[in-house]
Amino acid sequence: MSIGTNELTIKMVISAWESYFQRVNKLFQNLTDDQLQKQVAPGRNTGTYLLGHLTAVTDGMLPLLGFGEKLYPELDKIFLDSPDASGHKMPSLAELRNYWKTVNDKLSESIKSMKPEEWFTRHSAVSAEDFEKEPHRNKLNIIINRTNHQSWHYGQLLFLQPGAE
Amino acid sequence: MSIGTNELTIKMVISAWESYFQRVNKLFQNLTDDQLQKQVAPGRNTGTYLLGHLTAVTDGMLPLLGFGEKLYPELDKIFLDSPDASGHKMPSLAELRNYWKTVNDKLSESIKSMKPEEWFTRHSAVSAEDFEKEPHRNKLNIIINRTNHQSWHYGQLLFLQPGAE
Repeated sequence: MSIGTNELTIKMVISAWESYFQRVNKLFQNLTDDQLQKQVAPGRNTGTYLLGHLTAVTDGMLPLLGFGEKLYPELDKIFLDSPDASGHKMPSLAELRNYWKTVNDKLSESIKSMKPEEWFTRHSAVSAEDFEKEPHRNKLNIIINRTNHQSWHYGQLLFLQPGAE
Repeated sequence: MSIGTNELTIKMVISAWESYFQRVNKLFQNLTDDQLQKQVAPGRNTGTYLLGHLTAVTDGMLPLLGFGEKLYPELDKIFLDSPDASGHKMPSLAELRNYWKTVNDKLSESIKSMKPEEWFTRHSAVSAEDFEKEPHRNKLNIIINRTNHQSWHYGQLLFLQPGAE
């Protein structure tokens, strides 16, 4: 196995994740609490819900990638299993902003500690038997898919900002 | 160089592209002309503009990846260099749907013909000198970045469909 080419590919995938994380993070920082409480489009999710949703999805990456347990498993019921305005009591925006930072700090540190070959091992949601047949279901693939998921919602969150595309 | 691990990574990146292409493509097929002519959110791009925009971006991947010249270079002025409602005359929706299919068919066929090692060669917008220093600016990286770009607009286009997230 050529660590050279693999390390390059890993770098490309991680860089794409970081690049979109930076964009989303900057957007969340720039949006006021008032802006976040608005729906991104009429009848659609609020910025607050999407902040909680992306935090819960990123938190879920920790166990998938072998980086430890979820830090805020209580978010799943509100932001993954239920739609916006489900009636579940949401944490405050100050709390959500803090959770967002904490899970992303933890993920970012853990990513830095990964050895190249570990990215090609199976993630925790696939069995050893299935992984034998489907070796693409590895940890690096989680990053690829979660980057696209984050980009998807990034495009929507932009609508909370006047004049953005 | 281990073709084994490289082929796996290439497969992961291409699969992610195809997966999002299928989603976007299905959405464009499901949306009526009337729906596409609407803005995805108040004051934002129309579905028609985004169809032209994604077609132009995908068309631009052909020369970047060495698959030939752009098929519809005339789209750039309308859908890349100008915002929506710029006053430029747009092709009809029937034409745009046809261009979308044609560029994606061409891209898809060309991707199938690529040899694994070719994905790690430089794309046409980076000089040989720069590529020496920044080997991640290769063809595979174009796919990673364009997948995220397509996901971004996919999230927005969903708003044209009632009840989508």
